[in-house]
Amino acid sequence: MSLSDLQALIRKMYFAKDQARGVEATFLWLIEEVGELATSLRNGTHEERLGEFADVLAWLATIANVAGVDLSEAVAKKYGSGCPGCGKFVCTCPNSEKP
Amino acid sequence: MSLSDLQALIRKMYFAKDQARGVEATFLWLIEEVGELATSLRNGTHEERLGEFADVLAWLATIANVAGVDLSEAVAKKYGSGCPGCGKFVCTCPNSEKP
Repeated sequence: MSLSDLQALIRKMYFAKDQARGVEATFLWLIEEVGELATSLRNGTHEERLGEFADVLAWLATIANVAGVDLSEAVAKKYGSGCPGCGKFVCTCPNSEKP
Repeated sequence: MSLSDLQALIRKMYFAKDQARGVEATFLWLIEEVGELATSLRNGTHEERLGEFADVLAWLATIANVAGVDLSEAVAKKYGSGCPGCGKFVCTCPNSEKP
């Protein structure tokens, strides 16, 4: 599945609600899902983790839809030419630095 | 760009560091980026938002790599057959419910 497919799927499924709710209110849902992802990483099963990663991605796609951001463009711009820190495809940034 | 491409790109770029750092320490970076995404949504430019969405996706992919989760499989399982709440491709869940 492509990032564009993900955004289109989530747009079709939820855009009417998402737009009415707005970015701020939607962000709360994202944070809730990030919390559930943390729980699943701490003591969940592989199946539960799959579900929580999917939910975080879905809410991120929702916010991107409402904010008019293309996730595929975003990743290609920032990471498509190598690490944004050192420019290499296998990062050589010092460990103390991002990312 | 597909979700698999994203995971492979981030794996190539950062996996050695990511694995050494572990899921818990990597999660802190994800949260930092989620905070920066919030800032960019509140008062950032479109370009800044692109960068922050990319960073959140990159850290999410990193954690998925370390946790052995396939993001594409995750989304297909949870959302590929319709809304996990109502089963429809255009969600009809009550607004009070997720998602």
